[in-house]
Amino acid sequence: MNRSYVHGYDPVESGRLDDQARTLEDLLHHDTRYPAGSRVLEAGCGTGAQTAILARRSPGARIKAVDIASASLAAAKQRLDALAVGNVCFEQADCARLPYSDHHFDHVFVCFVLEHLAHPENVLAELRRVLKPGGSLTVIEGDHGSFYCYPQTRAARRVVRCLIDLQAAGGGDALIGRRLYPLLAGMRFDDVRVDPRVVYVDPSRPAWEEGFSRNTFIAMVSGVARAAIDGGLIDAATWRRGIEDLEATIGKGTFHYTFFKAVALKPT
Amino acid sequence: MNRSYVHGYDPVESGRLDDQARTLEDLLHHDTRYPAGSRVLEAGCGTGAQTAILARRSPGARIKAVDIASASLAAAKQRLDALAVGNVCFEQADCARLPYSDHHFDHVFVCFVLEHLAHPENVLAELRRVLKPGGSLTVIEGDHGSFYCYPQTRAARRVVRCLIDLQAAGGGDALIGRRLYPLLAGMRFDDVRVDPRVVYVDPSRPAWEEGFSRNTFIAMVSGVARAAIDGGLIDAATWRRGIEDLEATIGKGTFHYTFFKAVALKPT
Repeated sequence: MNRSYVHGYDPVESGRLDDQARTLEDLLHHDTRYPAGSRVLEAGCGTGAQTAILARRSPGARIKAVDIASASLAAAKQRLDALAVGNVCFEQADCARLPYSDHHFDHVFVCFVLEHLAHPENVLAELRRVLKPGGSLTVIEGDHGSFYCYPQTRAARRVVRCLIDLQAAGGGDALIGRRLYPLLAGMRFDDVRVDPRVVYVDPSRPAWEEGFSRNTFIAMVSGVARAAIDGGLIDAATWRRGIEDLEATIGKGTFHYTFFKAVALKPT
Repeated sequence: MNRSYVHGYDPVESGRLDDQARTLEDLLHHDTRYPAGSRVLEAGCGTGAQTAILARRSPGARIKAVDIASASLAAAKQRLDALAVGNVCFEQADCARLPYSDHHFDHVFVCFVLEHLAHPENVLAELRRVLKPGGSLTVIEGDHGSFYCYPQTRAARRVVRCLIDLQAAGGGDALIGRRLYPLLAGMRFDDVRVDPRVVYVDPSRPAWEEGFSRNTFIAMVSGVARAAIDGGLIDAATWRRGIEDLEATIGKGTFHYTFFKAVALKPT
């Protein structure tokens, strides 16, 4: 995995993830609530942006949040401490080799993680193992190929393409949203239900222009400027123009992106 | 306008439009109902696929359906006669020069029409003229650039690109959905509200695989085979492979498309 692309390791990036989490919370999380007393695993919690939402929305659930990166975990702990949320326990672990017995969890949640993996099947198999029969797996991912805008220029398309290509070069798949259904159905989950969560932005929705177009999507693209230019994927002038073209949609054009949320059950 | 691309002039094409109308009816029309007694204009009714839906959903409205093409109008009349719907009156007219006085209609409806026009502003200005102050304009359009699928191959992308390029060569814009907001807001309509209507298809939704993926979208793409190959946009082998690749998503992959529905008011 291309470490330079892993999210959340610096303050600007961490701020971006906060903005993203707040803007998108209702769209992505409104239908996820775990019962009091249920054991929930969040696999790949990163710096805890989603963990905070989970914990607040399911205050009675006992949430175990794991990540392989100790720096991320430290940031996540700090974030949750600041919120005085008491139902989360953090643990450092590799999501492909979890230190839990079979059927340990009632529910498993994984968000913006599979996109980074060369073999998401390995992690999904492990999540399935620790999930009890009848328990639910919830997966949320984006799909950068779902992005388009108006006006859309060649340079704008190229900078977004850089993000997709860098993800692929790192072994990940920035287009994973569209393949959640075949991925889960192919791994013997039952009742796989995938639901697109569409972000549509125009000037009548200024909170989305700022919260999503500028502070989530364009910020995310901007985060790979160095990697894209230094890696020879694009020249600096085209990069700059592409970012400007994306920004130029704000206040007059439209911006489009689709997340995918999958819920599936482990067969009883 | 490229006449070879105008929809609805042969039985196969007309059957495709029927399939499309039925599958998509709820998604696109569920929130359009006109009050009894209101005067509604459908501009560019074509062969009446949408007219039939409008008439059924607003049985008390007095619907005037116009089209410039007499062959389309004849087919539309026949379709509506067969349904024994009594609240539609057809008239041959150019939507850019309507034979109606200012403020004549309470509401105006236009669906899958603007995509074909080099200057949709001209028609919108005319629709605005015949609309009474405070009356609503409803516009429904697709956006072929919103399409993607899994698995997605280069050939699949190319055949869809042919459809977009042919539309552009004919003076139209197959990517018009994404620009409905700026288009309407720029023409002094009030309260412009654009809402994406997303078609997401996977094997858990077999009715959509047949009704949309195969019988609407792939059928529509297939309809321009001759024009695309003869026009030198693509070679016959790549075309065939592209269509096969699109079909291969059915039963195992996913299919994605977004329509856009705009509702706006004429200022009082």
